Amino acid sequence: MSCVQKVNSRVLGIRAPSGLQALAARITEEIKQGTLKPFKRVIDLSSNDPHRAEMAPISFVRQVLAACLYPEIIKENSLPLDVRQRARELLGACLGGSVGSYSATPYGIPHVIKSIAEFITGRDGGVKSHSENIIFSSGSQKTLEMVFNLMADVEGKTQRGVLTPMPCPHTLPPLLDMSGLTLVPYQLKEDRGWAVDLDELHRALNSARGRCEPMAIYISNPGNPTGHVQDRKTMKEVICFAATEGLVLLAEEVYQDSVYGGDREFISYKKVLFEMDKSFSETVELVSFHSISSPCMGECGLRGGYMEVINMDPAVFQHLKQLQATSSPTILPQLALDVMVNPPTLGDPSYETYSQEIRHTLTTLSHNALRACEFLNNVPGMSCQPGAAGIFLYPCLHLPPQMIEEAKGLGVEADVLYCQRLVEEEGLCLGAGCENGQEDQNYHVRLCVLAPPATLDEVLTRLCSFNHPKQLLDAVQKCSVMCLVHYNCRSEDS
Amino acid sequence: MSCVQKVNSRVLGIRAPSGLQALAARITEEIKQGTLKPFKRVIDLSSNDPHRAEMAPISFVRQVLAACLYPEIIKENSLPLDVRQRARELLGACLGGSVGSYSATPYGIPHVIKSIAEFITGRDGGVKSHSENIIFSSGSQKTLEMVFNLMADVEGKTQRGVLTPMPCPHTLPPLLDMSGLTLVPYQLKEDRGWAVDLDELHRALNSARGRCEPMAIYISNPGNPTGHVQDRKTMKEVICFAATEGLVLLAEEVYQDSVYGGDREFISYKKVLFEMDKSFSETVELVSFHSISSPCMGECGLRGGYMEVINMDPAVFQHLKQLQATSSPTILPQLALDVMVNPPTLGDPSYETYSQEIRHTLTTLSHNALRACEFLNNVPGMSCQPGAAGIFLYPCLHLPPQMIEEAKGLGVEADVLYCQRLVEEEGLCLGAGCENGQEDQNYHVRLCVLAPPATLDEVLTRLCSFNHPKQLLDAVQKCSVMCLVHYNCRSEDS
Repeated sequence: MSCVQKVNSRVLGIRAPSGLQALAARITEEIKQGTLKPFKRVIDLSSNDPHRAEMAPISFVRQVLAACLYPEIIKENSLPLDVRQRARELLGACLGGSVGSYSATPYGIPHVIKSIAEFITGRDGGVKSHSENIIFSSGSQKTLEMVFNLMADVEGKTQRGVLTPMPCPHTLPPLLDMSGLTLVPYQLKEDRGWAVDLDELHRALNSARGRCEPMAIYISNPGNPTGHVQDRKTMKEVICFAATEGLVLLAEEVYQDSVYGGDREFISYKKVLFEMDKSFSETVELVSFHSISSPCMGECGLRGGYMEVINMDPAVFQHLKQLQATSSPTILPQLALDVMVNPPTLGDPSYETYSQEIRHTLTTLSHNALRACEFLNNVPGMSCQPGAAGIFLYPCLHLPPQMIEEAKGLGVEADVLYCQRLVEEEGLCLGAGCENGQEDQNYHVRLCVLAPPATLDEVLTRLCSFNHPKQLLDAVQKCSVMCLVHYNCRSEDS
Repeated sequence: MSCVQKVNSRVLGIRAPSGLQALAARITEEIKQGTLKPFKRVIDLSSNDPHRAEMAPISFVRQVLAACLYPEIIKENSLPLDVRQRARELLGACLGGSVGSYSATPYGIPHVIKSIAEFITGRDGGVKSHSENIIFSSGSQKTLEMVFNLMADVEGKTQRGVLTPMPCPHTLPPLLDMSGLTLVPYQLKEDRGWAVDLDELHRALNSARGRCEPMAIYISNPGNPTGHVQDRKTMKEVICFAATEGLVLLAEEVYQDSVYGGDREFISYKKVLFEMDKSFSETVELVSFHSISSPCMGECGLRGGYMEVINMDPAVFQHLKQLQATSSPTILPQLALDVMVNPPTLGDPSYETYSQEIRHTLTTLSHNALRACEFLNNVPGMSCQPGAAGIFLYPCLHLPPQMIEEAKGLGVEADVLYCQRLVEEEGLCLGAGCENGQEDQNYHVRLCVLAPPATLDEVLTRLCSFNHPKQLLDAVQKCSVMCLVHYNCRSEDS
């Protein structure tokens, strides 16, 4: 019997994980221990984790961080001049000239925060970003957690809620649970490429009122896991909706660096807000999030992100800052953020390599997404909306009724059962749509497409074999055609 | 008017920071901008932050991390062989062989967790530590936050509480506030070198019951900020107390690597617990904390720590693990932890350098602490208990009644007022005792003594000048004598 006789009810309320990643890890361990399986290794493409899939990091980021950690190598001249200069500059911004000191302010190193503000200003065509509105933290989940902690009401009688897209990033539902905020779902329109629909926002809001007090609307643009990129018209509608309904607009914009759909472009919510008249641009409370876990950086293991907070009541914002002040933020991911927002420019020694590496990532992403989408639409029992940005595809599963029944019997979601079998039989781990918040009778899987093309080939072959073994030969033949396409892409790229 | 009309009452309840560090930073910025001050720079020794004070990092840690970040430098052979081997080994433990991937499990990289368990087992003379009881997180504050979140009760009618030493680490009170736990103070005995007193524990507990439901007792050993090292007898008493009263024992043991008091040694609470009979060793719930921000590592900016959880009810422990699972932990500090718990050994190429650097840190710490303590006891208006471990001294301020009155008039704590003046007039930032949770009429300051000896000289001179300008000459003369002592220490050290 524990001294903690009764665990915090909020902790008890955190939804249980699907266990798929744990299953994949267990099978990997079994193979290591010598168990024979019909596959040599498990491929896990359930997360936004390009380095796990063996995509290479951006050299400039790694060189600068290595030099900051061990400044002796700056002296050796083996690193490019701009790497050494940047490392010196960043060390100069660290207290005591060391990455081992605490951060100069709880909100981030002033030098880095200034770089971020300049980046935002440039990105948004001159709409000024102010350092004092920016807060660094250990990744966008941690930043969101702060905002949720601010909004939650531990003593109020009505629960507070956040309008949340279905599907949403798979890390979001447990965060809401932990903060004690109610997830108020609004459905994205799959048949329109996962667009936001204004009528659906109103429906969701109205259905929530009474049940809880909606405080904010969460937007993921470009969409995680949908790959959808919102257009200006929709964004204006969302802003008007937030303004009219008195909601804070939480814009997760982590995939802003990876739009590959030819006719789409990323526009930030802040930019659109400041194109609108003052009744909006001076009042709508906007928090936007970005991170070094973005597809082009892919530095998920470093854990670093920031939020920019616009139009928040200064007293409320002060409390948000105080939440951050309870623990000093980590240094290295701040330095990585500095590199991300202020990369080498034309004429710098590292410019060519840097640009080529970014181009390679985007080309791989774009070709993989196109190829995988076409393929998935040919797999029996699957259909897939094309993506235009970000790291995931999110195909629909048309599951046979027997499997849905079987899942019910086993007490798991049918998409989880599908994914379990896929890991067990083919050694392929995808994310189950229920992790992205989706409910019954609407089954999807989440597939990270930023991986070396050969890995993607293997993944598609396994998927096809699993979904329809008899058509494997056909599919493999199709694969070969696609490999040719992909070969051409690679030639073009190099 | 904000959409967040009512900020989470828990956030509103976080105590405001003293503002001393912000004041120090502002004056530093003014000097940079050209404002003339009676000092050239502000020295901030208010935190446990040796690198800020320009103590050098441990080379082996930095070399390994740099090589993991940018594996190209492994090929260059300029780094010692054991650095290159360790980097390869650690990269092999990272998914996809990259520090940019998410952690293999939410609790930490299995390879690192295993190293930690082996370290604990060795340290405790063979008392077995099990990997599954260890959880990594971004520093011991974050680890504590998890435990506090588990214990807090958002819905219960009675508040829950934690017995907390006075003084306690200055980061602790805001963490308790944020979790909604009541700080139940127990006084350490200053006249006995800040020892824990059993009668006082009973008094504190009894006075709390009714007001709140005490869930845990927090111990800092070696003491932050007191420098006290507990003896086995006291530790057994504390364990019996926790057992009898049904409290979880939270043992912060971050300063275990830095005992310098000749007659003292660090013994872990776990070791003592397992020396006791089964009615204790199999029942008392113990969570112990360690971190790479320990004095010998001093890698505060990396943010990494772990907790070992003993005898916790498995269902409760599962919930603690689930809290960690809401966000993937950062990789590099895990690798730094691996180096800390598994350093080079005799015969390894880096052994000599590593040992010498650790010895230098401990010698500096020990001589500085001795020197500063003797000095502070000679400063009019101050008295200081000797430290035996850790990074701080915690002298008492005997403030003149006028100053206490003046502080009351200004609405600040008198120790904060003292420290404000000290920053403004002498450019020296110390921590105010009220940040360590201490109440009225009992004024102290917190001084980090792990700094280069020349910096400490300057600090003591400024302190003396501030407390008693007329005796400055005397003091400076004493300083010179001490510098001689310190010179001898250094010769001995090198």
